[in-house]
Amino acid sequence: MRTSQYILATLKETPSDAEIISHQLMLRAGMIRKLASGLYTWLPSGLKVLRKVENIVREEMNKAGAIEMLMPIIQPADLWQESGRWEQFGPELLRINDRHNRPFALGPTHEEVITEFVRKEISSYKQLPVNLYQIQTKVRDEVRPRFGVMRAREFTMKDAYSFHLSEECLNETYKKMHQAYCNVFERLGLDYRPVIADTGSIGGSVSHEFHVLAESGEDAIAFSSESDYAANIEKAEAVAPNIERPAPAKELNRFDTPNAKTIEDLKQQHGVKPHRGVKTLIAYGAPNENEERGLVALVVRGDHELNELKAEKLTLVDSPLEFATEEDIVKATGAKPGSLGPVGLNMPIIVDRSAAVMADFVAGANEDGVHYSGINFDRDVTDYTVEDIRNVVEGDPSPCGKGVLNIKRGIEVGHIFQLGTKYSEAMKAGVLAESGKNQIMTMGCYGIGVSRIVAAAIEQNHDQYGIKWPTALAPFELAIVPMNMHKSHRIPEIADKLYADLQAAGIDVLFDDRKERPGVMFNDMELVGVPHTLVIGERNLDNNQIEYKNRITGEKELIDLDNAIEAIINLVKS
Amino acid sequence: MRTSQYILATLKETPSDAEIISHQLMLRAGMIRKLASGLYTWLPSGLKVLRKVENIVREEMNKAGAIEMLMPIIQPADLWQESGRWEQFGPELLRINDRHNRPFALGPTHEEVITEFVRKEISSYKQLPVNLYQIQTKVRDEVRPRFGVMRAREFTMKDAYSFHLSEECLNETYKKMHQAYCNVFERLGLDYRPVIADTGSIGGSVSHEFHVLAESGEDAIAFSSESDYAANIEKAEAVAPNIERPAPAKELNRFDTPNAKTIEDLKQQHGVKPHRGVKTLIAYGAPNENEERGLVALVVRGDHELNELKAEKLTLVDSPLEFATEEDIVKATGAKPGSLGPVGLNMPIIVDRSAAVMADFVAGANEDGVHYSGINFDRDVTDYTVEDIRNVVEGDPSPCGKGVLNIKRGIEVGHIFQLGTKYSEAMKAGVLAESGKNQIMTMGCYGIGVSRIVAAAIEQNHDQYGIKWPTALAPFELAIVPMNMHKSHRIPEIADKLYADLQAAGIDVLFDDRKERPGVMFNDMELVGVPHTLVIGERNLDNNQIEYKNRITGEKELIDLDNAIEAIINLVKS
Repeated sequence: MRTSQYILATLKETPSDAEIISHQLMLRAGMIRKLASGLYTWLPSGLKVLRKVENIVREEMNKAGAIEMLMPIIQPADLWQESGRWEQFGPELLRINDRHNRPFALGPTHEEVITEFVRKEISSYKQLPVNLYQIQTKVRDEVRPRFGVMRAREFTMKDAYSFHLSEECLNETYKKMHQAYCNVFERLGLDYRPVIADTGSIGGSVSHEFHVLAESGEDAIAFSSESDYAANIEKAEAVAPNIERPAPAKELNRFDTPNAKTIEDLKQQHGVKPHRGVKTLIAYGAPNENEERGLVALVVRGDHELNELKAEKLTLVDSPLEFATEEDIVKATGAKPGSLGPVGLNMPIIVDRSAAVMADFVAGANEDGVHYSGINFDRDVTDYTVEDIRNVVEGDPSPCGKGVLNIKRGIEVGHIFQLGTKYSEAMKAGVLAESGKNQIMTMGCYGIGVSRIVAAAIEQNHDQYGIKWPTALAPFELAIVPMNMHKSHRIPEIADKLYADLQAAGIDVLFDDRKERPGVMFNDMELVGVPHTLVIGERNLDNNQIEYKNRITGEKELIDLDNAIEAIINLVKS
Repeated sequence: MRTSQYILATLKETPSDAEIISHQLMLRAGMIRKLASGLYTWLPSGLKVLRKVENIVREEMNKAGAIEMLMPIIQPADLWQESGRWEQFGPELLRINDRHNRPFALGPTHEEVITEFVRKEISSYKQLPVNLYQIQTKVRDEVRPRFGVMRAREFTMKDAYSFHLSEECLNETYKKMHQAYCNVFERLGLDYRPVIADTGSIGGSVSHEFHVLAESGEDAIAFSSESDYAANIEKAEAVAPNIERPAPAKELNRFDTPNAKTIEDLKQQHGVKPHRGVKTLIAYGAPNENEERGLVALVVRGDHELNELKAEKLTLVDSPLEFATEEDIVKATGAKPGSLGPVGLNMPIIVDRSAAVMADFVAGANEDGVHYSGINFDRDVTDYTVEDIRNVVEGDPSPCGKGVLNIKRGIEVGHIFQLGTKYSEAMKAGVLAESGKNQIMTMGCYGIGVSRIVAAAIEQNHDQYGIKWPTALAPFELAIVPMNMHKSHRIPEIADKLYADLQAAGIDVLFDDRKERPGVMFNDMELVGVPHTLVIGERNLDNNQIEYKNRITGEKELIDLDNAIEAIINLVKS
C-alpha cells in the first residue's frame, strides 16, 4: 500500500480526551476515530489489526472443534424474558422497539439465542457435545464508555457456547477451550495469564479469565511465586493465618478520639499502627422470610481491604452487597461510621480470618469520638463468625500451598465459564438421552474480547515513539521510507522496484511515497508500529546499500542492494 | 468436516412459511434459521457461503483501489438531522435512545457517517480521490420482511463511498466500480446484468443496478435485442412512436357503459380492444406557492401501464406520486374513476407518447356509466402535454436505437450511484482546492447486498433436489458418502484415508460419517449442493473403484482407487 493512496491518518498531538496510552496511540496512529461516546470507526490500519486477531481466534476455535455460525445482533425480548435476564440486566442492555412496537434487545451476549437455536435443532444425545461460536459486533450501553475500544458500547467479540449431556463432558470441552485460549494469546505474542475468576452475572460454577498483563489494567491478579496458581483478586483466597491467636495481654481501654474517623487518622493522631486496629463495615443482611433486611458487621484488619464479592456470597449478607446508610448505622449502633467496632455491637459480626487472630487490638467503641484499645475476641466480643472476607495482599501465602502471592494488574481479554444448566433449565433445552428420557443440557460459554485485545496489546507493547506491535498483529510487515524521493532519480526507481519485489515475495509493505520530510515519515512509521523499516537515502545508495531498522529491537543494519530481497525476507520472516 | 461433528441441519419438509425457492432451500439445506421476522441465524454451511461472497467482494474492491474500514452500526441522530434524512427516512430507519436518552439510528447505510469522517480527516485536494468501503451488518426495519435473507431486517452489505474534486474524477471511479462489480458477479458464476437505474431515496444523477436474472426477481428489466442496453423498467425510456397520428375518421360518439369500469370490462362488454382505448388516472399535482395541490390527469393507452416514477418526476405532478381519492375525483370531474377520460376534463392533462398518436379512440366521458368513442386529440382534447409516462413492454423499440426490448426479471444485488454533492453540501464537507479555496467534494456510493447474493444465487441455480452452487460459492467442494459404513471394515478405512488425503490436498471435504441410509445421505448432499460427490460402496470396491458424481452436470464416473487422489483433484479443480 502506498501512503499517498491510503488513509494513514496519523496525528502529531495527543487527543486531550484519551486517558490511557493505548487509546492515545490508537487515535494518533490512525487505528480508530471516535464517532460518538463509546462508538468507534476502525480505520484501515486498525481494521487490519482487528482482522488479524479475528483470524487467529477463528483458526484456534476451528482447531479446537468449535463450529462457526452467525446469529442476529437484534434479539427478541421474549427469549430474555424466558431466561429471566430481561429483568436482571440493567440499562447496559440496549432495548429497542421495532415499527410494530415489539420489544427487542441489541445483543451484548447470546446465551438466550443459542439456547433457543439448540433446543430447536438438537434433539438427541447423539448430536452432543457441540460447541458453536461466532465473531460478531456486540452492543453494551456502558454507563461510562472509556479508554477507546477498551470499554466501548459497540465492540467485536468471539462468543462460543457448548452443550453437553454431563459435567464431565463439559469439563473436557472447557479444558480444550482453555488450551485454545492459551494458544490464541501465545500466537498473538502477548504476556497473558489465565486466572481463576468469579462467574458474575453470566452465572455458573467454574470460570477462568484470561488477562493481558499491563500496568493500566483494571483488574488486580494474584500469582503464586512458586506455582502457576493465579486468580483474580476478587476470587483469590486469603488463607487462614498459620498462627494461634495470642492470649489477651491488655485490658479493654476506652480512649477519646474526637478527630479520628479513619485508620489513617488513628495512626496520625494516636500512633495506632494500621495492622493493630480493625475496620468495621456495616452492610445489609440477607432478607428474612418477611423480606426485611437487618444489618451485619464486617470486620477486617486495619491494613486490609474488604472483598465485597466474598462478603456478598455469605448467607448472612445481602447480595449484591450494599453498605448501610449512615442513618441506619446510627439507629442501630448509636454511633457514626468513624467510630464503629465489634465490642457490644448488636448485630451478626463476621470477622475476617486475619482479624480473628489479633489480640489486644483497637476499634471504635460505637460512640462518636471514642475508641477502645486492648480488645480481645471471646473476652470482649463473644458472638461472631470467622470468614475469608478480605482481598489478598502482596506476600500473603498462596492458597495453592506453594510460595507467596504477588499482585499484578491485568486487562481481561477472555473469560470462560462452566455455566451448568442455568440457561438450559430456564429455557427447557433438553435432548433425548440414551435412557430414552428427556435430559436438560449442560452448557459452557467462552468469550474473547477481540477488539479489546487490540488495545491491550498496545498497553503492553509501546514506547515513547508509538506502538511496538507483536509480529502477528502489525498492520504492515515492512515500511519503505525513501528520503527526499522527489529530489532524486534513483531513489524512486529503487523504492518502486523494492516495493514491487517485496510485495511479490508476499510481504505486506507500506510504501511511504508522500512528499514529506524524512523525519515526519520516520515518526509516522514508528508511531504506526511497523516492525521493519527500509530507509533509502542517497548516501547509502552511493555504496549500493539501503538501511534496515527493527522497530522492536531498535537494531539497524546496512543491506547490499544486490541481494536485498533475500536479506529482507530473512529479516522479516525470521 | 465430518457430518457427525457438524450442524448439517437439513430438513425433509419444506417449511410452510417460505414462499420462494431460495428461502425454502436455505432452510432445508441448513443454511439459515429464522430467529424472528426478518432476523436470521446463519448456520455453519450458510456462513461459509456468505464468507465466500464477502471474500470475493473484498478482493475485487481492494483490486479497484478501495480501502476497507469499519464504521459503527449505531449512528448518532444529529448526523442524520444534518443531512435531512432523519425526517425523510420512514420507519425503516430503526431509531433508538441510549441510557441517557440520546437518539441514535441503527445504520441502514452510512452516507452520513462516512461524510462526517471524511470532512474531519481529509482537508486537502492532495488527499483525493479516495474510495472507502466496509462489509458490515446493516439494519432496515422492513414493513414486510420476507423471502428469508432476500429481504431481511438485518443483513450484510458492502458499502463503498468515494470522494472527489470533480465530476470527471467521480466518473472515473464510478467506471472502476462498475467494472469491479462485473468482476465480482463474474467470479461468483452468476448470470447478471448491469442496468440503468433510478437513484431513488439515496439521491444523485447517474446510477446502475446489478441484477441476478431469475424468474422470481422483484424487478423487471428491459434489454435491447441487439445491443447491451439494459435498464430497470422503472427507468427504461418508452421512445416516441415513429408514426404520424392518423387524421380523425370518426365523430365523437357518446355511448352507455353502465357496467364497464375497466379496460377489460370495455373489451368484454363493448368489444373495445385495449389498444384502442385510453386509461385516465388522476393524481395530485405539485403544490403551488400556497402549498395547495390541484389534480392532474395521466393518460396512457389501454394496454399500457403508468410508470409512476416517470410521472412523479414531471414538474406538474407531486412527488412522491399520490393518486387522488375518489372523493376529490368526483368533486373535480363529476364522475367516479371507472368513467374518466380526457374530453372536457378541467385539469392539466399529460398524455403518454404512445397514447398521443392514437386517433378515433375510446375513453370515459366523465359521467358515470358513459364513454366516448371516436375521440381525437386537438379536435376533442385541445389542452394537453405529451410525455413518456408508461412502462416499456416487450417488443418496444430499444431507446439505444438498436433492436427491440425484451423483458426479464431480476434480483437487485448491487447498486452504484453518482451522488454528486447531495450529502457533502448538506454536511459542508469541503477540502482546500488547488486554488486555495474551499471546495465541496463530489461523492459516489456503491452497494452490494452480500447476504442477498446467497439467496439470489440459489434462485438462479437449483433443481428439484436442491441447490446447485456455482463452484465459487459452494460450502464444501466435495462430499464423501460411504455406504453402510458401519457394516463394513474396508469402507470406513478407505473413506477415512480419502478424507485425510483430500483434505491434505487442500480440498474442502464434507465426510458424511453418519449412520444413515445411503438414500438419506445422497439426498442431503444434493440438497446442500455439494458440487462433487464420491460414493464408496462394496460393489465398486470389489473392482477397486469408487464412484464420482457431479452435482451440476449429473455426470457419473468410476475412479480407480490406485490413483484416486490425483483424479479427484483434477475433477474438483478443473
